Amino acid sequence: MPLRTKLTEKLGIRHPILLAPMGTASGGTLAKAVTEGGGLGIIGFGYGNQERINQEFRAAGNARVGCGFITWSLARQPHLLARALDHKPAAVMLSFGDARPFAAAIKDAGAALISQVQTVAQAMEAVDIGSDIVVAQGTEAGGHGATRSTLALVPAVVDAVRERNDKIVVVAAGGIADGRGLAAALMLGAQGALLGTRFLASDEALTSAAAKAKLVAARGDDTMRTRVFDIVRNLDWPAVYTGRALQNAFSRQWHGRETELEKSLPTEAPRYARAAEANDLDTSVVFAGECVDLIRNVKPAAAIVASIVHEAETALRSNLPLAR
Amino acid sequence: MPLRTKLTEKLGIRHPILLAPMGTASGGTLAKAVTEGGGLGIIGFGYGNQERINQEFRAAGNARVGCGFITWSLARQPHLLARALDHKPAAVMLSFGDARPFAAAIKDAGAALISQVQTVAQAMEAVDIGSDIVVAQGTEAGGHGATRSTLALVPAVVDAVRERNDKIVVVAAGGIADGRGLAAALMLGAQGALLGTRFLASDEALTSAAAKAKLVAARGDDTMRTRVFDIVRNLDWPAVYTGRALQNAFSRQWHGRETELEKSLPTEAPRYARAAEANDLDTSVVFAGECVDLIRNVKPAAAIVASIVHEAETALRSNLPLAR
Repeated sequence: MPLRTKLTEKLGIRHPILLAPMGTASGGTLAKAVTEGGGLGIIGFGYGNQERINQEFRAAGNARVGCGFITWSLARQPHLLARALDHKPAAVMLSFGDARPFAAAIKDAGAALISQVQTVAQAMEAVDIGSDIVVAQGTEAGGHGATRSTLALVPAVVDAVRERNDKIVVVAAGGIADGRGLAAALMLGAQGALLGTRFLASDEALTSAAAKAKLVAARGDDTMRTRVFDIVRNLDWPAVYTGRALQNAFSRQWHGRETELEKSLPTEAPRYARAAEANDLDTSVVFAGECVDLIRNVKPAAAIVASIVHEAETALRSNLPLAR
Repeated sequence: MPLRTKLTEKLGIRHPILLAPMGTASGGTLAKAVTEGGGLGIIGFGYGNQERINQEFRAAGNARVGCGFITWSLARQPHLLARALDHKPAAVMLSFGDARPFAAAIKDAGAALISQVQTVAQAMEAVDIGSDIVVAQGTEAGGHGATRSTLALVPAVVDAVRERNDKIVVVAAGGIADGRGLAAALMLGAQGALLGTRFLASDEALTSAAAKAKLVAARGDDTMRTRVFDIVRNLDWPAVYTGRALQNAFSRQWHGRETELEKSLPTEAPRYARAAEANDLDTSVVFAGECVDLIRNVKPAAAIVASIVHEAETALRSNLPLAR
């Protein structure tokens, strides 16, 4: 039974569920699986290149998928946008940075423009550049994000966006891993949810089996926002955006000692690179949102979509008697 | 039309809405107003004394109210608990610290024991000490709190608590200021919501008129968690608990420079005290949650309760067609 919202109408999808374009996990195979499950799969390019773009669209085959860029990274190699648009994505999502220079090309190509924002002020900018969909992302999200939380950010963005242009669709992101979270997002006025961490623990994610097992075992109390994994990877993220990850030996060693870490890069960067190569998760990062408590298994992405929709419907129905 | 939940049953109230025991705002008059509106008013004693306790219970008159303590502060003057219990509160809420030494006396007095927690691990401790109600408080809350966010914390606490004792009722706190937030909390599995900031901007709050006006004008993007207002007031809060407040000239001057502020206390503490006395809000703190975007007026607390319930019912009903 479909949950119809303005998001499903706008994108022509069955369920109001979007895959977060996680550079390390959301390849074409996962995006395809989410789309085939009734949501919209969005390939993540990370800090990628043209080869990666072609490869992941190839992996998605004929499935109708979108793709996502890290905006400040795209600004350094802006030609990649045209390469992605060559593949006729259903949507292009831009996160973390000034989306203005890219909006027109995306819309001219007939793709939906999805802007991810972390504040109400950014949501207003997203409206101004002609976004079709605004994703309001809370700090509980895994991976990169900022400080505001989903529960209060979403209704504020809904109100602010509606006042300017009620055709724009708002989607909630951050902290959602099951149908309760999707139902809550709908109550807040969002028209759907974008999920990352839950899909990290899917069969099709590019994530390693060891990382998936770690996600299933992890607790939300054990995640933190930190810059240490960006510093050691020489990624110059704007300071407002930190990465939420599972704490490990590396973060416990360096979080709060970022200046010292920067000085130690000549030894720490190669040590980290070796650990990442060896998939040593005591050192190498596993990005994860606070919702990991709610993730108890690894399963096919389409099954994840189906169970979230089923749970959301159950939650929406079961609370009705309360209102009688 | 009442929204009936396990919380309303447990406390014998009409609506699943609790007043946060804010030391600076939740006096007996506000608690009485929330109770008369159909929720449960909970008086906040802050770092109070016996005189304050008697005074606020007097202000509540015959209304059935609860009261709340800052647990680490209560531990320094534990005799205050008995003074509060003399007034036969309907419930006693303990937040921020080890509640174990106080649980038995509260339950023996026939009051409901409400434990506020900020992590799943703390929720387990709250179960162990015999709490009747566990309030899961997210970081978006105004005033003191920790780092986890409501949207992911609440369902995780619901699952963990239910596994141990399904008679215990879970309530959501942090980021909720309207009926959309209450409806979302119910979807997450909570049985109600505890609200602070929304009631700060009520007629009956002890908050100054200037502070109420500032709350109505403020934006959620402008709040932050900080220790500077605790440092300058010589309050030795455990480091894990920071206070979310509206940014002002004082926080902009000192946030991130806490060690320097500590050294400057001989001049800054008296300067701050004078500003607080004069209600100079450029220096003096206005605690506020991220939900301030949703607060657009000051009105009677009972009217706030009524509109939240009405909005929640509307949200719960309006989303139903989507599920058909």
